[in-house]
Amino acid sequence: MPDPSPFDVIKREIRESGAYTLKYLEADVKLDQNENPHEIPDFLKKKIMTRFQEMEWCRYPEFVPSRIIAALERFTGWPAGGILVGNGSNELILSTLVATAGPGRRVAIPQPTFTLYGLLARAMGAEAVEVPLRPDLGFDVEAMVEAARTSEVVIVCSPNNPTGSLLAADDLARILAAAKGLVIVDEAYHEFSRQTIASMLPDNENLIVFRTFSKAMGMAGLRFGYMLAHPGIAREVNKVKLPYNVNVFTLIAAEVLIDESQAVDGSIRTLIEERDRMYRALTDRPGVEVFPSEANFLLFRTGCPPGQLFEQLYEDGVLIRNVSHYPMLDGCLRVSVGTPDQNLRFLRALDNALEA
Amino acid sequence: MPDPSPFDVIKREIRESGAYTLKYLEADVKLDQNENPHEIPDFLKKKIMTRFQEMEWCRYPEFVPSRIIAALERFTGWPAGGILVGNGSNELILSTLVATAGPGRRVAIPQPTFTLYGLLARAMGAEAVEVPLRPDLGFDVEAMVEAARTSEVVIVCSPNNPTGSLLAADDLARILAAAKGLVIVDEAYHEFSRQTIASMLPDNENLIVFRTFSKAMGMAGLRFGYMLAHPGIAREVNKVKLPYNVNVFTLIAAEVLIDESQAVDGSIRTLIEERDRMYRALTDRPGVEVFPSEANFLLFRTGCPPGQLFEQLYEDGVLIRNVSHYPMLDGCLRVSVGTPDQNLRFLRALDNALEA
Repeated sequence: MPDPSPFDVIKREIRESGAYTLKYLEADVKLDQNENPHEIPDFLKKKIMTRFQEMEWCRYPEFVPSRIIAALERFTGWPAGGILVGNGSNELILSTLVATAGPGRRVAIPQPTFTLYGLLARAMGAEAVEVPLRPDLGFDVEAMVEAARTSEVVIVCSPNNPTGSLLAADDLARILAAAKGLVIVDEAYHEFSRQTIASMLPDNENLIVFRTFSKAMGMAGLRFGYMLAHPGIAREVNKVKLPYNVNVFTLIAAEVLIDESQAVDGSIRTLIEERDRMYRALTDRPGVEVFPSEANFLLFRTGCPPGQLFEQLYEDGVLIRNVSHYPMLDGCLRVSVGTPDQNLRFLRALDNALEA
Repeated sequence: MPDPSPFDVIKREIRESGAYTLKYLEADVKLDQNENPHEIPDFLKKKIMTRFQEMEWCRYPEFVPSRIIAALERFTGWPAGGILVGNGSNELILSTLVATAGPGRRVAIPQPTFTLYGLLARAMGAEAVEVPLRPDLGFDVEAMVEAARTSEVVIVCSPNNPTGSLLAADDLARILAAAKGLVIVDEAYHEFSRQTIASMLPDNENLIVFRTFSKAMGMAGLRFGYMLAHPGIAREVNKVKLPYNVNVFTLIAAEVLIDESQAVDGSIRTLIEERDRMYRALTDRPGVEVFPSEANFLLFRTGCPPGQLFEQLYEDGVLIRNVSHYPMLDGCLRVSVGTPDQNLRFLRALDNALEA
């Protein structure tokens, strides 16, 4: 018998799982992470930096960051008691799963979607119930309703990453009505769809909405996300949320940005216009299949091997994401919508590669 | 039968547990959170702010933050492959428990200690095996060795919060040798003990060391911690660590501070001297029992009801921590070591209260 190893106490589901990784690549045109490519205006940065300079860095943030929560209450119209803030929305998804997922429990997740949901659900020992999208990559609402009946948690990303598909409000209503437990809607990209299902919160105790400042709000580097839920649910999730989970700088930056959120409206409008323009441009290209998207990225497929196409674009200075290993996404790549210049560079690089 | 409620899917261990909370109180003299009361020097803040101004805030941090990990490799002498960074060390403790703790597993934890270990272990569905300290509040090494034999994880805070007691290296060696699984040593306060057990890492595959920048390093507001472990263990824990968990600002601040760590040495020396002076001052006071401490705080007990003493000090502008609800700590309070002025204010307020 071999000596016992400390690895033996790593849970089987962790040892057997792969890591969620992303190779860091420098590029002139970075269209791989669905970031808003526009920096927030300099006057806002200055305002934030000035307030930061006045802080005591050696002191912990407030235990309950009441100013940011009050700001989010104004921003969303949802009461403070049902708001939690996190180090990115991912952290709050983890906290929610710590509170609800474990062996013998089921977490229903459409596939393909953001990898982290399934990874975390399985890490908690729960069964990740995969609900395939329809062949056109829209949500299979019938199948989601069925899965919701027997799952403690349903997690839907809407608009969905990496497909861009949106879950309609009345479809969500059917899932909420059938659900055995909680239904999480990750609205990371909602600003680009010009809609939100947050208005369904008052009538649905089992709905949780996640939002992030990493996409439309242009603050991916600062890590900020929040959760809107029934106050009773928020209270339970809060028990397992780490204390002091948002640093003082990010708290200030988020607060300033909420009060001046019109400052990012222009960049969001530009990104929506650019997305629609790029969609048409891709549609016009023979041999390119592009999927409708309500987010700030587009999913497309060509006749070329996706790894090779990715490399050719990268050699041309354009970094996008090869998502062809996701279920149902054979041959597919995902490109974030960038500035008009960046998008032209992408289209030109794509044409070069497809002609080659 | 009542209607099913979404609360039903909150795990029983969460619903039945209380939250870790701290009421936010303003005070002239804040000695309740074991912070380093000295801000880092202005020239360092300027250096950090300048570098931050040059960053793109709209971009995610690197997937693997290689610069900070290289800096920590230089700082600690431990190889990069065994280093993970976190949004405070608490986050990495949670990740380690996600990777190792669950139903049917045991996590051994001396008591009293930092509340979060037990809270998170139970949230994961594991059994938290409490190992009481000795009556003098030193570690009960025999009992810890026994608990380690049958526990997947042992978590020791050394110097221990809120008692200040240190686990000797040879005692840790006995625990490591007996342990069935991993032994976590949270060295949040190690700088104040002028020692570390990190030198035991090469010979002990099952040892994990946690460090934080929130105490001696004077950066509680920025949230930064790190983990030193065998690379094989770090690789597994990394699978469940959230991506982009440290924001770009904190990464820069930590990197600058590591390169200029001598800048905080003076404040650490002052805090150690002040701790020893305060220890003697408390010892000299009749009716006050004070416990030896290797950290930047002191635990003490008086004949007064602790809640009343806490309030009297608070009315005098001095905020400390009432820890009398911890097991074995009947009547005890914890005071952080502050600046010389703050410590005098505390002693004067204490004298006033005890004379009243």
